[in-house]
Amino acid sequence: MASANCIFCKIVSGAIPAFKVVETPLSLAFLDMGPLSKGHALVIPKEHAQFMHQLSDESLSDLLPVAKKVAKALGAANYNVLQNNGKLAHQEVEHVHFHVIPKPNETEGLGVKWPAKAADKDSLKALAEELQARI
Amino acid sequence: MASANCIFCKIVSGAIPAFKVVETPLSLAFLDMGPLSKGHALVIPKEHAQFMHQLSDESLSDLLPVAKKVAKALGAANYNVLQNNGKLAHQEVEHVHFHVIPKPNETEGLGVKWPAKAADKDSLKALAEELQARI
Repeated sequence: MASANCIFCKIVSGAIPAFKVVETPLSLAFLDMGPLSKGHALVIPKEHAQFMHQLSDESLSDLLPVAKKVAKALGAANYNVLQNNGKLAHQEVEHVHFHVIPKPNETEGLGVKWPAKAADKDSLKALAEELQARI
Repeated sequence: MASANCIFCKIVSGAIPAFKVVETPLSLAFLDMGPLSKGHALVIPKEHAQFMHQLSDESLSDLLPVAKKVAKALGAANYNVLQNNGKLAHQEVEHVHFHVIPKPNETEGLGVKWPAKAADKDSLKALAEELQARI
């Protein structure tokens, strides 16, 4: 399942070292080398996939219980869990990873810009029906 | 398990309407009423908790397979999955919710600010050992 040139697959196999926090048969958590705040960790599936929607349900099911262990160990009162898919969405390594990022104050940790728009209820209703039909 | 004044618990019970996309025995996905981009959806556990680390592993395990269904139905080439814990980390409703946010272009969707810092390897090593000991 590993991808030959993937840095995270190499961390999983042990070919590249990492500051591991916790490991299960399906997942691995380790510290980010360029942290947004102290304790910034990554939780990854051992299964290789670029996008979240390409992972098996088995791998997906294991990730958040691991993220929970990491968050409890970090003990941060405020934190963000973020997973980016695609370059435009800020994905840098093409192997699914969930960031667990403590938010200790306004300047450290993840900064978000929230350009929300007013929603048109008729459009939302039509879109929900369209999506339901695709599931 | 529902919390009396929680808007998301009321959506789960049906007391407040929502544009539902998919539902399982443990989770519910519906469209965000103030979307950052077309298709911006929320995936929530039916179990009430303010913070991700307070949820049962059973609830946590169900959320990402549901988010995967939503992402596949949306069909976005780029998207972010975001879950905020605490007011400082931009949490607005105090019931765990995972945003699935298409990123169609630079201006729509989630904007992130990434104030990464150079990491000191000795500090990371010590922190990883400290966290391991807490798990």
